[in-house]
Amino acid sequence: MATQAHRVVIIGGGFAGVNAAKALSHSSFSVTLVDRRNYHLFQPLLYQVATGGLSPSDIAYPLRVIFKHQRNVEVLLAEVHDIDVENRVVRLEHGSVPYDSLIIATGAGGQYFGHDGWEADAPSLKTLEEAMEIRKRILLAFETAERETGLHDQLACLTFAVIGAGPTGVELAGTLGEIARDTLRKDFRHIESHRARILLFEGADRVLPTYPANLSRQAHNALLALGVQPRTGVKVVDISSRGLNVEGPRGMEFIPCRTVIWAAGVKASPLGRILAERAGAELDRAGRVLVDECCRVPGHPEIFVAGDLAHSKQGNGAMAPGVAPAAMQMGRYAAGAIRAQLEGSRPKPFHYWNKGSLATIGRNKAVADFGKLHFAGPLAWLIWLFVHLMYLVGFQNRLLVFIQWAISYLTFNRKARLITGGVILPDLAPNSSQAETAVGQEQSHAGATGSSPR
Amino acid sequence: MATQAHRVVIIGGGFAGVNAAKALSHSSFSVTLVDRRNYHLFQPLLYQVATGGLSPSDIAYPLRVIFKHQRNVEVLLAEVHDIDVENRVVRLEHGSVPYDSLIIATGAGGQYFGHDGWEADAPSLKTLEEAMEIRKRILLAFETAERETGLHDQLACLTFAVIGAGPTGVELAGTLGEIARDTLRKDFRHIESHRARILLFEGADRVLPTYPANLSRQAHNALLALGVQPRTGVKVVDISSRGLNVEGPRGMEFIPCRTVIWAAGVKASPLGRILAERAGAELDRAGRVLVDECCRVPGHPEIFVAGDLAHSKQGNGAMAPGVAPAAMQMGRYAAGAIRAQLEGSRPKPFHYWNKGSLATIGRNKAVADFGKLHFAGPLAWLIWLFVHLMYLVGFQNRLLVFIQWAISYLTFNRKARLITGGVILPDLAPNSSQAETAVGQEQSHAGATGSSPR
Repeated sequence: MATQAHRVVIIGGGFAGVNAAKALSHSSFSVTLVDRRNYHLFQPLLYQVATGGLSPSDIAYPLRVIFKHQRNVEVLLAEVHDIDVENRVVRLEHGSVPYDSLIIATGAGGQYFGHDGWEADAPSLKTLEEAMEIRKRILLAFETAERETGLHDQLACLTFAVIGAGPTGVELAGTLGEIARDTLRKDFRHIESHRARILLFEGADRVLPTYPANLSRQAHNALLALGVQPRTGVKVVDISSRGLNVEGPRGMEFIPCRTVIWAAGVKASPLGRILAERAGAELDRAGRVLVDECCRVPGHPEIFVAGDLAHSKQGNGAMAPGVAPAAMQMGRYAAGAIRAQLEGSRPKPFHYWNKGSLATIGRNKAVADFGKLHFAGPLAWLIWLFVHLMYLVGFQNRLLVFIQWAISYLTFNRKARLITGGVILPDLAPNSSQAETAVGQEQSHAGATGSSPR
Repeated sequence: MATQAHRVVIIGGGFAGVNAAKALSHSSFSVTLVDRRNYHLFQPLLYQVATGGLSPSDIAYPLRVIFKHQRNVEVLLAEVHDIDVENRVVRLEHGSVPYDSLIIATGAGGQYFGHDGWEADAPSLKTLEEAMEIRKRILLAFETAERETGLHDQLACLTFAVIGAGPTGVELAGTLGEIARDTLRKDFRHIESHRARILLFEGADRVLPTYPANLSRQAHNALLALGVQPRTGVKVVDISSRGLNVEGPRGMEFIPCRTVIWAAGVKASPLGRILAERAGAELDRAGRVLVDECCRVPGHPEIFVAGDLAHSKQGNGAMAPGVAPAAMQMGRYAAGAIRAQLEGSRPKPFHYWNKGSLATIGRNKAVADFGKLHFAGPLAWLIWLFVHLMYLVGFQNRLLVFIQWAISYLTFNRKARLITGGVILPDLAPNSSQAETAVGQEQSHAGATGSSPR
């Protein structure tokens, strides 16, 4: 134990953290990757788990397997409670880890703009657990509608609201449209699933507001074709278990609705606040840490922040966006900057290289924005498929996802439609007319004589 | 609406229920299949979900998809609360379903022989939720051992006990052996996973007691080769969160152990008791309904019981066993018997056709018992693989399971190793020496200097 290796601690096993640790392979550094999950999650496909197209394990990969052969990396399953900046120690729930350099990459969760109470009725889509919860709610809404005899309640069950028309919101709403129109078409006997109302609310005046206007228009039309109703320029005023109040061009409106999904903005991980307290870091309104040109906390050249937790101003004054490619680039950059610092050289400033943006709406439908070159349609969709398969971790996941996509494309089926965990039965409203009515064949008869849903 | 169709209600979407409903296709019957789950579960592979080899959706298939095109079948997601035998109505939590003929096939759960308190520390393996809970416990045990510095606690974390050496227990223990020996081999830095102790307890004097003695011997040796210690003639006296007390040839013994899995006996579904109360059915000790030679509740020719809930005495006096093939046969039989009764003919008695039994221990290792012909080894293993793939519902599931088995066979990896849901962090013992110790690189150093686990 002559000279001790330089100790790099990375907090967070997302895109930034994993890429930082990988970039430190073949180094003499001793790397500890701390995460409270035992897997790396491929968040861009999380909406497919929430809609029953893929299984959780298709888009999650054990961190230990990723670093199995990289012997200078140790994976630690633990929750970080505090950072002792003076003594350079990360405090865990049990125990602690000392560091020489620290990379914090703990990402972001749902942001409810001061309405945290909405979360129960409008979960966001950031973790596997949330994805499974949303999957359960979507499936149970159809199940409940099938059993529901009151027209009003049935309508509320068959109304789905997605808040926020960024890429995630558009992908979710488009997939819900496909599920209602194609996947479930012959599954039920008393409802016609394609009559489900899928509403996509956006505060800006168009869907995909960060994309060029003509792509927004094409995405808008693609959504309409899938039966999704995009409502732009609309502000959500309140959300409850009965529905939501919105304010828009049509004035105030209450929409009875059982299933609301939140895709409208992110809030940085609480580690940002810890950095503010302990290292004097400045935070932006979403709780992101304002980093210097080298992704460091100002005044602390040994602390890097990467990924969605970082607010990194680029040369043009804009922030590097909260997307996977930016997180990967920052993770790799931080690893390189640590090496450079150790060699005594000054790291070059971080520069986000925008490779372009892709968002999919449904089968054969996507938009691609490569700066001057931007287009919509099947080619954009194929590029989307290819890029997402390529970035999935693990050959097996790539193969299994590819096969499932191919089969879904051919059959319109989505096989991971399981309702698991906790309460699994439809919770009918207490004032439901169901309670006193016989269900089953009697309804079946009713259904057989009338072709329209009750 | 001239004459009303004969209404068949099937409770339970397992092997018996699904096969009964399928056998009623192309009939004029109106069939309602009631289940509290929205999927059919392929229980024989549940242990592979519990050990991270397969995903829940690989072995579960939505009931609505199975009966999508069988228009005389209606699937109802509901919990049965009571059966009104007089008025021929099944009472649900909300509403009710009238029937002309009833098939009850709600199966069985774990049986703790009067020690229901053990369930919390020794979950059984009957549902997807239980499988995911067991998966979490197994993975967290290794994670906790990796962080644990106290030798005693580390040993308890690395000790796994499986209670019951029937096919499920043997399959679980064998897979645990492979996980410890092969899958996790390079995943950890402070423990050597292959030193995990996997104990398989059995009350009888040999493993797989229902199989021919020479197969038991071969299974025993195969388990030993995987590092599993089978302990036969042993009775479990007590189970707690600290470990288990057993009584056997070596006398009383306390075994410190964090992970206990229960695979020792089943208790019939509570619908048996309802049948006893409402229809005067007799139950056996495990709560199964004693049915007549036509799988009916004596005195109620309109009520059939099929699958694990039925105690059907065969010509030789033995009971049709609680295995998937028997359940499928009973389900199809009940459907045929209803048709026969309606045509005024007397159904032939149910006869269980034993096609043989298969149990797998690990890669290339299985036992096959086809009566006079019984053997162990790679051929039995290939037959096991083929039969299980064949009986999986859905082409896509078959393909995905086949690919995952092939890749696991080649790489020793098990990719569905996710710790999800509820508390995800290792709960270290309060008196653990961990609490005051720094973990991370310091241990890494210790690990690098000594080759044995702490």
